[in-house]
Amino acid sequence: MLRPVFGHRGAEMVALMERVAPRLRRLFRTERPVYVSTSSATGLMEAAIRNCANRRVLSLICGAFSERFFHIARACGKEADRLDVDLGMSNEPDKVAEALAREDYDAVTVVHSETSTGVLNPVAEITAAVHKASPGTLVLVDCVTSLASAPVEVDEWALDFALTGSQKGLALPPGLALGVASERAYERSKQMPGRGLYFSFEALEKAVLNNQTANTPAVSLLFTLDAQLERIEAEGLEARWARHQAMAERTWSWVDELRGRLGLDLRVLAAAGRRSPSVTCVALPEGLNGVAITRRMREHGYTIASGYSKLKERTFRIGHMGDHTIEELDQLLEVLGSVIEELAKE
Amino acid sequence: MLRPVFGHRGAEMVALMERVAPRLRRLFRTERPVYVSTSSATGLMEAAIRNCANRRVLSLICGAFSERFFHIARACGKEADRLDVDLGMSNEPDKVAEALAREDYDAVTVVHSETSTGVLNPVAEITAAVHKASPGTLVLVDCVTSLASAPVEVDEWALDFALTGSQKGLALPPGLALGVASERAYERSKQMPGRGLYFSFEALEKAVLNNQTANTPAVSLLFTLDAQLERIEAEGLEARWARHQAMAERTWSWVDELRGRLGLDLRVLAAAGRRSPSVTCVALPEGLNGVAITRRMREHGYTIASGYSKLKERTFRIGHMGDHTIEELDQLLEVLGSVIEELAKE
Repeated sequence: MLRPVFGHRGAEMVALMERVAPRLRRLFRTERPVYVSTSSATGLMEAAIRNCANRRVLSLICGAFSERFFHIARACGKEADRLDVDLGMSNEPDKVAEALAREDYDAVTVVHSETSTGVLNPVAEITAAVHKASPGTLVLVDCVTSLASAPVEVDEWALDFALTGSQKGLALPPGLALGVASERAYERSKQMPGRGLYFSFEALEKAVLNNQTANTPAVSLLFTLDAQLERIEAEGLEARWARHQAMAERTWSWVDELRGRLGLDLRVLAAAGRRSPSVTCVALPEGLNGVAITRRMREHGYTIASGYSKLKERTFRIGHMGDHTIEELDQLLEVLGSVIEELAKE
Repeated sequence: MLRPVFGHRGAEMVALMERVAPRLRRLFRTERPVYVSTSSATGLMEAAIRNCANRRVLSLICGAFSERFFHIARACGKEADRLDVDLGMSNEPDKVAEALAREDYDAVTVVHSETSTGVLNPVAEITAAVHKASPGTLVLVDCVTSLASAPVEVDEWALDFALTGSQKGLALPPGLALGVASERAYERSKQMPGRGLYFSFEALEKAVLNNQTANTPAVSLLFTLDAQLERIEAEGLEARWARHQAMAERTWSWVDELRGRLGLDLRVLAAAGRRSPSVTCVALPEGLNGVAITRRMREHGYTIASGYSKLKERTFRIGHMGDHTIEELDQLLEVLGSVIEELAKE
C-alpha cells in the first residue's frame, strides 16, 4: 500500500540508475555524466539555452527542427541570430566561422540530423570551427535523430551539450530526454542567471551522480531504457551505425532506380555526403503530392511521413532508424514504389 | 513500420485528447482548457513562475514543497519573499493580506496540501484575500496532493493557476503534469518576457485546444489517464473526496486511540481544521524515531514515509490517497500500531 505516493527515490531506482548511467556514457561516447530529464527533447533544447547562453545565440538553420532551437532562444529572452541555408543544404563550418567573426555569441545551436530535410550536418567540423574562431562560444547540439544511428562522439568532438529524446534513435516510447554537458558548459551554467530549477544542469548532474533523477520520471520508461541500452550494446554501437548507413544507402539507390524506371524526377533532397542515415526526405516532381503518397501508404498499412512544414506537399520522408531492419525497409520500398507508380498514372 | 518515428500527432491521439479534455475540466472544476505537460509537477511550478511573474513573488511556506516554489522563483531570476509559518501550521489569509500591504507582488505561490506536514491550506480564503488586497496579483497553487482528493474549485475560487502531477491524487504512474490558468493569467503570460517555449501557457493552451499536447508525451500514460478519469467519474468526485476525508478521520482518531492506549505523546502534526485528507504527518515523542518505524513497516511489507527533510526523524507520514480504501488503511494502521508498541518497548 501507498507505494506510488513515496516510491520513486527508493533502492530499486538507485540500482536501475547504476545500470543505466555507464551505458548512457558509452552511448554518448563521454566520460561526463548523462542527464536524464522528465521531458521531451524540446525541454532539453530549452535547458541548453537557459544554462549556456546569457545574452546572444547563433542558430544554424537548415530545416524545421533547427529553426525550433532559434525560436526557443528567442522565447527564453535571448538575442538570437539565424544562419539559414536552402532546404536540403547543410550548415557548413566556413559560414559559421564568418558569422562568428562578425558578432560575439555565447553559444551556437545546431541540429545534427535535421529530420525535416534528411540532412546530416558536419557537427564535428562545425564544432572545431566554432571553438577555433571563438574559444568562449559553446556548441549546443540536437542529436535527436543521430544518436544511436550515426556516429556521435561527444568527448572527441568536444560538443558542449548534446541532447536526444527517447523515441527516435533509441526507439523507445516518448517521455524521457537525455543530454550531456561538457565540463566548461557545466561550469558556466552554475553562474547563469535565471536558468530555473527544472532544467538546471546542476540539478540534473547532481541527481545522476547520486543515481537519481532530478524530477520524478515515468519509471517504466527508465526500465525500458535500460533494456534497450542492453540490446544496443549486444548489437554493438558501430554495428548499429553500419545498419543505419546500409538502410540509408538502400533507400538512396532505390530513389535512383525509381527515377530511371518511371522516368520521373524523384530525388533525395539532401546533397550526397550530407545525408542522414536515419531519415531520407524525397523531393517530388510536379504532379506528385507527398500527402497523397503518405495517405495511400497508410491504406497499405505502412507509415511514412509527408514533408514537414513548408515541404509538406513537395516531399515525403522515410524513417529508417531505431530497430528497423533492411528486410523491413525493402518490403516498404517495394510497396512505396508501386504506390508512386500508381499515383503518377492517375 | 516506422510508427514510433512519426506517430504522436495522429488521429488516435486526437480522439484520445477529445475524451480526456472535458474530463480534466470537470476534475479541475473549470471551463478553461487544462494543460497536459510532459514533465513532473515541478515543471509546472516553474511554468507558473515563468508565465505569471515578471519581477517579484511572495511564497507562502509551510513545509518542504511550498519552499520549493520559493526556490524555483529565485532560480528563475525573480525577486522572491518568503512568508513562513511553524511546521504543522497553515498559511492564513490575514498574514498574506498584511504582506501584500507592505509590498507589490506579481504573484503569490501557495501549496494546497503540504505533503511534508499534512497541512491543508485554506486556499479559497487565501485567494480571496489576495485578490481583495491586490487585484493585480495572481495566485499560483500547487494542488499535487489535493486534486482528486480534496475539494478544489478552480473557477469558483478564482485560482489563477492550479497544477498537479500524475502520480499523487490521480494515482497514476509519474511522467505527466496537469495545470489550468485563469483567463487573466493566460493573458498576462502572452506578454511575459523570457517565459520560454517548453512551459509556455500559450503553447500548452493552443495544443490542448487542438486536441494535441505541446510536447511529445509518454503516450501510454495518456491512455492510463483517460481510464483513470473514467474511474474517478464512475466513483463520483464528491464521493472520492468523502472517501479521502473518511480515511483521514480514521487515521486521526487512530492516533488519539494509540496515544491513550500506549500512554505516548503521539499527535497529528497539523492543527484540527487544517488537516489534509491525503496525508497525515504524525509527530513522535522523544525516544521514537520515524526512520525506524518506516523501516520496520517495510519489513512487514507496508510502505509509509519517514518525515521530510527537517522532520525526518521526529515524524512519520501515512499517505491515504488515490485509490486506497478504508479497509486497506485499517489493515495498515493495525500493523503500524503494533510496530510502534514494539519499538516503544525496545
